[in-house]
Amino acid sequence: MSTQNRFSMYAFWRSSATYRVRVALNLKGLTADEHAIDLDRGEQRDSSFLAVNPMGAVPTLIDAEAGESSPPLSQSLAILEFLDETTPRPPLLPSDPHGRARVRSLAAMLTADTHPLVVPRLKRYLTEAGFDAAAWRRWQIHWFTTGLAAYEQRLATEAATGTYSHGDAVTMADICMASIVMVARVFDIVVPDVPTIDRIMASCEAQPAFAAANPWRQEGAPPKP
Amino acid sequence: MSTQNRFSMYAFWRSSATYRVRVALNLKGLTADEHAIDLDRGEQRDSSFLAVNPMGAVPTLIDAEAGESSPPLSQSLAILEFLDETTPRPPLLPSDPHGRARVRSLAAMLTADTHPLVVPRLKRYLTEAGFDAAAWRRWQIHWFTTGLAAYEQRLATEAATGTYSHGDAVTMADICMASIVMVARVFDIVVPDVPTIDRIMASCEAQPAFAAANPWRQEGAPPKP
Repeated sequence: MSTQNRFSMYAFWRSSATYRVRVALNLKGLTADEHAIDLDRGEQRDSSFLAVNPMGAVPTLIDAEAGESSPPLSQSLAILEFLDETTPRPPLLPSDPHGRARVRSLAAMLTADTHPLVVPRLKRYLTEAGFDAAAWRRWQIHWFTTGLAAYEQRLATEAATGTYSHGDAVTMADICMASIVMVARVFDIVVPDVPTIDRIMASCEAQPAFAAANPWRQEGAPPKP
Repeated sequence: MSTQNRFSMYAFWRSSATYRVRVALNLKGLTADEHAIDLDRGEQRDSSFLAVNPMGAVPTLIDAEAGESSPPLSQSLAILEFLDETTPRPPLLPSDPHGRARVRSLAAMLTADTHPLVVPRLKRYLTEAGFDAAAWRRWQIHWFTTGLAAYEQRLATEAATGTYSHGDAVTMADICMASIVMVARVFDIVVPDVPTIDRIMASCEAQPAFAAANPWRQEGAPPKP
């Protein structure tokens, strides 16, 4: 009996983008064999990983059913859309175009406007440009707070908000929201005055798909402080 | 006779994200009434615009056929997906899931990993944090170069690259690529050694949908230097 999974994933324990893919796989009932890539040690630039994905991107998802000319899957939202198209149940997007646009827009506020500003390569650049630890900390807090406050404002004022960010089912927007809240927690950053996010985050964490993706439960995670 | 368009768009002449939506509208044969929002003057924070979109985001697309509870459309990739779902011809994505994943991943490399680093709010923060004009210029050049070099590496090595970034038809990936090349040009930044990008960019610019979206041809653009 073969126990080979269709998917394998190159992952890092606290990576926000990896968390998003873990949650989506869990929701869809899919399993990926994980290979830990330690971004703090620079393993994403090791030749053994670059042979898998020359871009050195984490997460990288390998689909054993892909054709030979298909590159490995990368970029978390592209992976979420792929999983939603190939394993449609439960859906990660609503069915109406305006609802889908709202969910994708909410997701992009955090994955495009917030997350890229707080990744290791930005820390490296800014440290070399003269940021000390306190300046980097101010930077992190500023962008996490700006991004989550804007997300909260939309949740609190837009009619389509429900039990979750859009209506009463989990969507890509919740996955992205949880991924940012979770990595902020890892960095010990608490964003105040986001009651709608706090409420939805609690609903997400009560679900096994989110709980199993908790960074502290992944291979390579240090003991929780 | 009514000449009211279905769509109206709040736009800025050199905005990379606005360019993406302009190209997509043009390719689909759609027209939006444009309202210029001058980001250099901070008009995105004026109360008159915040009444339209409390997030102050450019581009903001208003769909006269949307229900009252639908917020204005925002985030360029969410808008591109919306336009592709509601006006399917010509498609902005290939039909197979792995092809769609590749196009969305290429698009995200530039819209999520590159563009958010070179927007006005980053310039404001870094200037207040001590960056002088030369430091900001180095920052711009570094991230435009990093993003486009990574994109070039994928185009040059992946089998699915064709006349365009994915096969022989324009996709979202080309629109995002052109939007970054174009705004780099506006800032007088030339990224060397990207021959595949240069070739595809020439093919894009030969198309009326791209030519009509040229930043220098938009309302509010200064005389071309």
